[in-house]
Amino acid sequence: MSSITAFENVLPEIIDEILTEISETNLPDNGKEWIKQALTHNCMGGKLNRGLSVLNSYQILTAQKELSAEEFKRAAVLGWLVELLQAFFLVADDIMDASHTRRGQPCWYRMPDVGMVAINDAFIIESTIYMLLKKYFKSEKYYVDLVELFHEITLFTELGQLVDLITAPEDNVDLSKFSLDKHTYIVTYKTAYYSFYLPVVLALHMAGKASKTNLSEAKRVLIPIGVYFQVQDDYLDLYGDPKITGKIGTDIQDNKCGWLINVALELANAEDRAVLDANYGRKDPKCEQKVKDVYTKLDIKSKYHDYEESVANDIRNQIAATDESEGLKKEVFSVFFDKIYKRQK
Amino acid sequence: MSSITAFENVLPEIIDEILTEISETNLPDNGKEWIKQALTHNCMGGKLNRGLSVLNSYQILTAQKELSAEEFKRAAVLGWLVELLQAFFLVADDIMDASHTRRGQPCWYRMPDVGMVAINDAFIIESTIYMLLKKYFKSEKYYVDLVELFHEITLFTELGQLVDLITAPEDNVDLSKFSLDKHTYIVTYKTAYYSFYLPVVLALHMAGKASKTNLSEAKRVLIPIGVYFQVQDDYLDLYGDPKITGKIGTDIQDNKCGWLINVALELANAEDRAVLDANYGRKDPKCEQKVKDVYTKLDIKSKYHDYEESVANDIRNQIAATDESEGLKKEVFSVFFDKIYKRQK
Ligand SMILES: [Mg+2]
Ligand SMILES: [Mg+2]
Ligand SMILES: [Mg+2]
Ligand SMILES: [Mg+2]
Ligand SMILES: [Mg+2]
Ligand SMILES: [Mg+2]
Repeated sequence: MSSITAFENVLPEIIDEILTEISETNLPDNGKEWIKQALTHNCMGGKLNRGLSVLNSYQILTAQKELSAEEFKRAAVLGWLVELLQAFFLVADDIMDASHTRRGQPCWYRMPDVGMVAINDAFIIESTIYMLLKKYFKSEKYYVDLVELFHEITLFTELGQLVDLITAPEDNVDLSKFSLDKHTYIVTYKTAYYSFYLPVVLALHMAGKASKTNLSEAKRVLIPIGVYFQVQDDYLDLYGDPKITGKIGTDIQDNKCGWLINVALELANAEDRAVLDANYGRKDPKCEQKVKDVYTKLDIKSKYHDYEESVANDIRNQIAATDESEGLKKEVFSVFFDKIYKRQK
Repeated sequence: MSSITAFENVLPEIIDEILTEISETNLPDNGKEWIKQALTHNCMGGKLNRGLSVLNSYQILTAQKELSAEEFKRAAVLGWLVELLQAFFLVADDIMDASHTRRGQPCWYRMPDVGMVAINDAFIIESTIYMLLKKYFKSEKYYVDLVELFHEITLFTELGQLVDLITAPEDNVDLSKFSLDKHTYIVTYKTAYYSFYLPVVLALHMAGKASKTNLSEAKRVLIPIGVYFQVQDDYLDLYGDPKITGKIGTDIQDNKCGWLINVALELANAEDRAVLDANYGRKDPKCEQKVKDVYTKLDIKSKYHDYEESVANDIRNQIAATDESEGLKKEVFSVFFDKIYKRQK
């Protein structure tokens, strides 16, 4: 599998190429420096799982342990396009959530002199995706498919984000807006498509294996994996070990429309519900504790373990049923699943 | 020429089509309603010059007084894509400028319950451009050209916006960052490309006349027209008749990197410069008056009239020199120019 270091080393090259292209407009130097900072700050410091997934999926699909330098670069560029898409979303998400830090650093919009200029920086980051697609893939017959794929997944992510934002605004708690259906919509569109489906489909295109069957197989298996991943995230936010996850969860205080609260709402009697209504989404540790007490009373923890066993079983069956007749490999999916099954961080 | 009413009437159809497409994701009803409001609020109420330019240019290029219903719809869709692009930028620009009103209404982000969700709404508005391009133009051989054109012009506008934002931040006046070169960069990239070049190039594509020569002719003539238009805007901000323009200018108080201040900086002696440094960009009518007094002393008004005569002459010569051998028509350009020459609003 490709090392994270080899993948990371491609970023400075890509940033140089972006700046070279942009310089053709005679952009003043302070503009170039600004864009370099914006790209570096917002693309580095993460786990790079999504970007690496493109490389690893491509290697499995083409059964290559080592890629030629050119092949590696092109697959790495596709990986970085997923990371750029994420950077575009995260810059904006942090503003919309009024967040303070991201990946152990101040959020971009909280950096000195940045502020709301970050919105335009998010736009520029998005634009670099299409600049790089054109530079590297224009001559491929699947070029239009790649462009349309990014358009579609971008819109999906924005729709998931919209439902998240209007269902669970931080300043107006209304649990009657929540439901497990809305939760599934949010995580499917906001997370699963761009994090799980997109990297594999990019690899399929580059491997020349993006047949209709393979694309629909990828969707069938990867969207449930992505939903499971996000449910784990919601679980770990409260019940993960901060020593392992590296963070103390804030979902209850932040009025998040997460899996735990939605299950609790389904199980709550009138009395529990009153406690949840009065205490969820409040910036007060005492309120948070009351919500946690309801979760304990309703035994949400074991509901989660039941869910995990059942969904993991489903996913294993879905993977086993993969149609490999058009060159897809089960391993593409099982690698994802094995990485996240019963993860603790 | 196509009437504004006929063009306006296409918007509700387009919004319905967008909502139908988006509904395939099973977006909850409150999400659909939200997007409908966001599109309506941000696309209506403007002069629609840019959108109408697509229609009018197309009619001139194809020498048709009346378009068939289908042709009208497709050209109107292209016109609305320019308006959607503008809406995407304006939603964000108003947040970045902390503006209060736009087109006589509260800015979208100032509407009840909207706030920073407007950032994601801007993203969604941008995404609808590519959704509609695919729906209406996917089968055309110039489809990829249209998609790449929108990508390129979007990036150009973002680069112009970036230079504007970092050259003239409202909270940190530093006139040493200003220059007529930067002003030209800002207005070329932030305004001229999307407002003047884009509508004509869209019409050229749809008319089957987007040859290399015609595209470069369009750039040669329309970018200077766009720059002239923005210089007029800067002039009218201060010297226009509020009864005619409908607004009282705020460029001096807002620290705008406009044409007037840049010319004044070129002509100012040390004493004038000290007054400008101490008073430009301050939210204080007394400071504003001191800047105006320097402008009067330097006779910026007559500098503008000299500029206008000289640039109008240049543009007329550029238009006269248009190469019509590949089906382009001078009239496409002269219609633009005649509409704005010596405009008072
Ligand atoms: Mg967030
Ligand atoms: Mg968020
Ligand atoms: Mg979380
Ligand atoms: Mg503004
Ligand atoms: Mg602005
Ligand atoms: Mg103005």
